[in-house]
Amino acid sequence: MKIAVFPGDGIGSEVTREAVRVLEALDLPGLTLFEGDVGAIAYHRHGHPLPQETLAMAKAADAILFGAVGDPSCDNLERHLRPEQAVLGLRSELGLFSNLRPATVFAGLEDMSGLRPELARTIDMLIVRELNGDVYFGDKGMRTTADGQREGWDMMSYSESEVRRIANSGFQAARKRSSRLCSVDKANVLETSQLWRDVVIETAAEYPDVELSHLYVDNAAMQLVKDPGQFDVILTGNLFGDILSDLASMCVGSIGLLASASLGERETDFGTFGLYEPIHGSAPDIAGQGKANPMATILSAAMMLRHSFGDEAQAARIEAAVAMALADGIRGGDLGGKLGTSAIGDAVLERL
Amino acid sequence: MKIAVFPGDGIGSEVTREAVRVLEALDLPGLTLFEGDVGAIAYHRHGHPLPQETLAMAKAADAILFGAVGDPSCDNLERHLRPEQAVLGLRSELGLFSNLRPATVFAGLEDMSGLRPELARTIDMLIVRELNGDVYFGDKGMRTTADGQREGWDMMSYSESEVRRIANSGFQAARKRSSRLCSVDKANVLETSQLWRDVVIETAAEYPDVELSHLYVDNAAMQLVKDPGQFDVILTGNLFGDILSDLASMCVGSIGLLASASLGERETDFGTFGLYEPIHGSAPDIAGQGKANPMATILSAAMMLRHSFGDEAQAARIEAAVAMALADGIRGGDLGGKLGTSAIGDAVLERL
Ligand SMILES: CC(C)[C@H](C(=O)O)[C@@H](O)C(=O)O
Ligand SMILES: CC(C)[C@H](C(=O)O)[C@@H](O)C(=O)O
Repeated sequence: MKIAVFPGDGIGSEVTREAVRVLEALDLPGLTLFEGDVGAIAYHRHGHPLPQETLAMAKAADAILFGAVGDPSCDNLERHLRPEQAVLGLRSELGLFSNLRPATVFAGLEDMSGLRPELARTIDMLIVRELNGDVYFGDKGMRTTADGQREGWDMMSYSESEVRRIANSGFQAARKRSSRLCSVDKANVLETSQLWRDVVIETAAEYPDVELSHLYVDNAAMQLVKDPGQFDVILTGNLFGDILSDLASMCVGSIGLLASASLGERETDFGTFGLYEPIHGSAPDIAGQGKANPMATILSAAMMLRHSFGDEAQAARIEAAVAMALADGIRGGDLGGKLGTSAIGDAVLERL
Repeated sequence: MKIAVFPGDGIGSEVTREAVRVLEALDLPGLTLFEGDVGAIAYHRHGHPLPQETLAMAKAADAILFGAVGDPSCDNLERHLRPEQAVLGLRSELGLFSNLRPATVFAGLEDMSGLRPELARTIDMLIVRELNGDVYFGDKGMRTTADGQREGWDMMSYSESEVRRIANSGFQAARKRSSRLCSVDKANVLETSQLWRDVVIETAAEYPDVELSHLYVDNAAMQLVKDPGQFDVILTGNLFGDILSDLASMCVGSIGLLASASLGERETDFGTFGLYEPIHGSAPDIAGQGKANPMATILSAAMMLRHSFGDEAQAARIEAAVAMALADGIRGGDLGGKLGTSAIGDAVLERL
């Protein structure tokens, strides 16, 4: 069981350290951890946010634990050298097409949400976002128009097979939950979305037990604020998923608690190859101060055990330890408490 | 002063009727109103959601009062015959490139919002959305890939002049408010957004008194829920504006009160040519029952007087009458009250 740990920038190294402690405490047989550089730190050390050695390490691993990338020192670099390109590069090079983001409000934390508590309490959804296609990875560029103006352009597209494989992820995820899948697109305007909708409907024939619905993206954004409890699994493309998954996280409020998985097609000896990361960023403002809440990264490690190592029992054990710590009032600064990164790590470890 | 009234479908005719009563009560000199068909009703009567006669009427007018379009009877039509194509057709044929959507919480209505009241209370923003470009109006289609798959595609693009004219709308609108403009894009991924950001920054040189900031669209969606009070004017493209403006409306909560203007480049004898409409839809479920709240349409008529007829005094007078009615407890079903469409119209008229 080879895990590549990519702490990245800012608070990334602080939060991954605690998740690694949790993984090590489980005494998993044959667990090997190795560490690589990504993001701004990789740029400063090796001249590129995603060095070849890091990519090779990623490919040799069964799963990746990822911290966060981004640092103000890189703000003025050309786009292809900026830290976030490491994220996009890993997704495309490793074929990580299926991004799973559970959004659930922990009992007692309804007040962290910007939504009214009675709405926040109802949030329990999973967002399944396509991660390898759409306008993110199409041709793009700057050109000069006939009348001499600059014009920026990006090609948006989805093919049948791209939609079918993420639709399968969505339907399968829905089956493990409440069997309701809401596909989000903009089929009243976009051909890309029309193809998306057609293929999702075709795929639904294989999942007669899952209830399928469709929303336009503008309406979906509204519904997330109006009545988030209506959603079980949301299935959507790369661009809309970027917006809606962040919106859903903020509806939950406590983004220091939200984990994510990005799964590929490759099956290893243990499960599905994947990358796991907290949804929060590198938070340069509090980096190096031991203040960051590591729970989201610890919960990402739990997702890793579930999806990449088929170890539901250990995954559930970590999740229970975190829930117990929260129920016991363990709170980082992000939740209005006083505990630092390692104290929170300790609290979770004790409850394991 | 020629106003084309396009009631459209569902509750459209009910709500525009009240707005017309308000306009007529003002005794504006030389006011002429004429009515045309758009949407499902136009499709059923003339075979097209935006008949040539309607378009000609629109072009001959100084401003358009629009109700809403959309009806289940059209759900299975081919895309180019569906009611929403009338909306897109009017925007492009009339060059309505600048969509203004004020989002403000009326005092006493903080509880209508899905957000916590203390957050909802702080909402007072204007969204300026580009309406003639982006992935909405680029080339698009279905094709077969080399390996025989269907693929849907849409070209996203913005040119310098397209961005500059909407940026000017944004900066000018900010000047009339608190002089803070937040431009929203996805420049870390899209070349279209990079050009957008470059041109917005260039345009800013002409507005040194306006404070300019930038947010990525995923972050903007989060900030709207986390701290909506931070925004004065949001400037964004067609696709992101579609999502963010609906999200902002839902953060306000009372969408039966939200108005919008879509302005063109053409200057008439009285002001800027424009189309005015409530942001709510045709609500087929309550159509024909006299239950719809006409306030959003009445407030849209006020925006018309301001922008297309340069009559700030009458615009403010209508807005004051609506605010007064709300303060007096006048409430439609959408706000938990019992009053019907014409009773609300009466209440506003009395206070005029
Ligand atoms: C960093 C950025 C390119 C990325 C994205 O847009 O996908 C991020 O916002 C995310 O959601 O992981
Ligand atoms: C009806 C639809 C094409 C339209 C849009 O996407 O612009 C609507 O959602 C809007 O925002 O006015």
